[in-house]
Amino acid sequence: MKIALAQINYHIGNFKSNIEKITNAIIKAKSQGADLVIFAELAISGYPPRDFLEFNDFVEKCNSAIKQIAKDCADIAVVIGSPTFNSAAEGKPLHNSAVFINDGKIQYEHHKSLLPNYDIFDEYRYFEPGKKFEIISLKGKKIALTICEDLWNIGNDPLYTINPMDEIFKYDPDFIVNIAASPFNYKQAEIRKSILLKNVKKYKLPLFYINHVGAQTELLFDGGSMVINKEGEIIEELKYFEEDFKVFDTDNLKTYPAKETKNQPSKMELIHDALVMGVRNYFQKLDFKKAILGLSGGIDSAVTLAIAAEALGSENVKAILLPSEFSSDHSVNDAKILAENIGCKYDIISIEEAYKSFTNTLSPQFKNLSFGLTEENLQARIRGVILMALSNKFGYIVLNTSNKSEAAVGYGTLYGDMNGGLSILGDVYKTEVFELARYINRNTEIIPENTITKPPSAELRPDQKDSDSLPDYEILDEILYQYIELRNGPKEIIAQGFDEQIVKKTLKLVNTNEYKRYQTPPILRVSPKAFGMGRRIPIVAKYLSR
Amino acid sequence: MKIALAQINYHIGNFKSNIEKITNAIIKAKSQGADLVIFAELAISGYPPRDFLEFNDFVEKCNSAIKQIAKDCADIAVVIGSPTFNSAAEGKPLHNSAVFINDGKIQYEHHKSLLPNYDIFDEYRYFEPGKKFEIISLKGKKIALTICEDLWNIGNDPLYTINPMDEIFKYDPDFIVNIAASPFNYKQAEIRKSILLKNVKKYKLPLFYINHVGAQTELLFDGGSMVINKEGEIIEELKYFEEDFKVFDTDNLKTYPAKETKNQPSKMELIHDALVMGVRNYFQKLDFKKAILGLSGGIDSAVTLAIAAEALGSENVKAILLPSEFSSDHSVNDAKILAENIGCKYDIISIEEAYKSFTNTLSPQFKNLSFGLTEENLQARIRGVILMALSNKFGYIVLNTSNKSEAAVGYGTLYGDMNGGLSILGDVYKTEVFELARYINRNTEIIPENTITKPPSAELRPDQKDSDSLPDYEILDEILYQYIELRNGPKEIIAQGFDEQIVKKTLKLVNTNEYKRYQTPPILRVSPKAFGMGRRIPIVAKYLSR
Repeated sequence: MKIALAQINYHIGNFKSNIEKITNAIIKAKSQGADLVIFAELAISGYPPRDFLEFNDFVEKCNSAIKQIAKDCADIAVVIGSPTFNSAAEGKPLHNSAVFINDGKIQYEHHKSLLPNYDIFDEYRYFEPGKKFEIISLKGKKIALTICEDLWNIGNDPLYTINPMDEIFKYDPDFIVNIAASPFNYKQAEIRKSILLKNVKKYKLPLFYINHVGAQTELLFDGGSMVINKEGEIIEELKYFEEDFKVFDTDNLKTYPAKETKNQPSKMELIHDALVMGVRNYFQKLDFKKAILGLSGGIDSAVTLAIAAEALGSENVKAILLPSEFSSDHSVNDAKILAENIGCKYDIISIEEAYKSFTNTLSPQFKNLSFGLTEENLQARIRGVILMALSNKFGYIVLNTSNKSEAAVGYGTLYGDMNGGLSILGDVYKTEVFELARYINRNTEIIPENTITKPPSAELRPDQKDSDSLPDYEILDEILYQYIELRNGPKEIIAQGFDEQIVKKTLKLVNTNEYKRYQTPPILRVSPKAFGMGRRIPIVAKYLSR
Repeated sequence: MKIALAQINYHIGNFKSNIEKITNAIIKAKSQGADLVIFAELAISGYPPRDFLEFNDFVEKCNSAIKQIAKDCADIAVVIGSPTFNSAAEGKPLHNSAVFINDGKIQYEHHKSLLPNYDIFDEYRYFEPGKKFEIISLKGKKIALTICEDLWNIGNDPLYTINPMDEIFKYDPDFIVNIAASPFNYKQAEIRKSILLKNVKKYKLPLFYINHVGAQTELLFDGGSMVINKEGEIIEELKYFEEDFKVFDTDNLKTYPAKETKNQPSKMELIHDALVMGVRNYFQKLDFKKAILGLSGGIDSAVTLAIAAEALGSENVKAILLPSEFSSDHSVNDAKILAENIGCKYDIISIEEAYKSFTNTLSPQFKNLSFGLTEENLQARIRGVILMALSNKFGYIVLNTSNKSEAAVGYGTLYGDMNGGLSILGDVYKTEVFELARYINRNTEIIPENTITKPPSAELRPDQKDSDSLPDYEILDEILYQYIELRNGPKEIIAQGFDEQIVKKTLKLVNTNEYKRYQTPPILRVSPKAFGMGRRIPIVAKYLSR
């Protein structure tokens, strides 16, 4: 039997585009003699549809789309993900289903049993778990149909009390199909492979795995769909970060010694490619073309600009240099060199007049109070206002340039440099931003060496350095990783040899700045624990915050 | 047997304060001869602790606190809510438990079976459902211990496939205890009573119900704990929006004909009292004292100021009038009268100089482009910058003054009037804001009549009216209610007689402004469906947005 894997970049709620892409893949699969073509989990709606699932109108549109697609399937079978209504009186109103279409009709619906409800996942919010386990048959082959998490309850620390594949296995299937929506983080491809290989090892069955590709706001899907033979060898991986399509013959799942072995991409390559895709898809899917950002001469805005230019084309990105009296010459210079290296347009707009107008306007209130944090924030906010005015006037989308370390400890100005439609580096720690800059410069110097080597500074007061207020980033980022990614508490972190005062100060900063992060733009997620939908912390609380 | 109900305003993660309040209630219960004192669901941590539950350190602190409290319980029994670790190898790491303490020891833990995972609830994110149903005994009485949602799967449209109380009922209990965390909305008290009464009717048992009171950022808990006798009569309700404590004798659960019958409070009274508590607790729990807001002379900032003054004291609220060339005389005048009626300090700070400085700074880019949305937003953003500067300099918290209608259709300026630490009216439709103003003026005119009767205007260009851009609020708010609260789709709304074009335009505005709401402050939740944690919509999507 020939099985086609269609790895597609869907768009949430854009039924016209999703149907078109799916139909084209079906036509292509037929033309290549495929018997079955498989599409990803909730392909028809895009993933995650979130609370659109609470609108019957939305779910009905999904169901109509599936029926429309079925009409094209007189001579090919299809497995495709869609929400379906739960017909039982009890339980949640929907299922997360893999719909099996054959002979132009919906022949079976497998309902996902294991509904992830951690990190960025909220599936139990909408779906009733499937409790019926059957098998589908096509051209004499028995297929075990599973959806993403259905295969993940394997290993020593099971999150669920049942294992659906154990049940389906009783029907003696010939192979496993898994349709997934497995979002990227820089560790995920490895974990995903290991989970799938464990299943193949356990059940001794070939596995056809299809994933989403493309970005849905903050969630990035890296593709990497694959076929594994029953010996546990990966026959083929589909492309990462791109749409792809391939047909496989179930009777010939051999690895070829001649097959080019591609090196596992580095963490920085993964993050870079994911961010480029994230920016590109955000703009494409919202019908935006042009981006704007404030270019300070520092590392964060430099890396943001380089990624945006790669995603959108340098002609579609505009840099604005917004110097104040505290901006150093080298900053303006580094920023200019970068813009020229990238080949994007830039303007220089001094914030001094606006700054003076505010200090003058506020002088009756401020009287002779000395320069301080207020005046630093004022500069950042004036820059924010100017970028937003240019955005409003010319239709640019403002790119946020904050990094994860800053976002974590609140080292940024709300309604100032924390502005933007999308945060590119908000899930990339400062030390990783430097690594990313080196990666961007891997072939030629795009980001000026001076931007990479000079000590980080916000340049909001004379001779300011980040290290005046924060621990060294090497230490800070390690503590943050322990707390945010690993959810270690102060005791565990201190036990690893970090200074107690620095740990306590850091965790306090993280927890007391929850209010700032509440109002930041969506952050492209590249780590296993990003700020945003996957991390939900109360603002009004008193935990580690004294 | 004597049972004490301790209705307490907990603070998430503030173990010191929570333990102190619980211990004091235990002492009081003992002094009044109670045999058992009951506290709310997850009392020890505060509700909702959200992802703090992913930190073992946090859960261990909960468990230590329970052990510490148990030491004070040599001669009284306690039921109290706490997260506990799941001792099984399989399943999620925690349970949401009602801990039964007797003889100074933890004698039993009932694990919540029905874990709400809709709207603002995420309980299945953390907790493994309880599957064991037993009963506890105290002084010859058998008690059915349940936690909030455990009693809610009653009625014709069950969300869950089991009903824990049916299981516990087999042990022939003498009464039901339900410990809850049931957040307020203006319909909730009524629904809650009806659910509890259905249980009493079904099982013919008295019911002791204890709820949280107080605000946790956006979530407001209204208290209203109660005791219902087996005849289905509410013996007593504890106070709404305040801490309360009362002891009941299980042998004497009679209603007294002489008992004062209190009228059901009006929707506006409920919303008003909830908002006042919300503002007050936000400030108390974050150790803030003083608030600031921009006072435009319009209805939204007027109502916000009145509520803030009641919550914090008029001496702790400062109003800033920020007129531009487009501000009408009556606006400034109405604002002044209001500030004087309320007795709060106010300053007048013209934004004209700052506005000129920006248009001058931007003139090389803007050249001769005509006045438009950019210049309107600019004014709102300058106001935002000034309020934030005063906030930074003097420690005021900026109050957001947007209403739900504006937030829904994006009629507001991001980083401008959408700024603030907390949104007071973000869950109150414009038409309801007018009703709230009338309620505030119920005894005496606080909000000037002219503020209530003049046509709403943002005053960002000459002679601007809200009705230039938006449907009449009477129509807009009804469509929004249909879409947001009831999740009706366009077909269903149009079928009710609303104009098709207006419906489509409105839903499009709601869906395309998701990006703005992503960055707004937390909104005090008073309706059954508020923007924020209870409504999760993708930004990059194309549903009803063309």
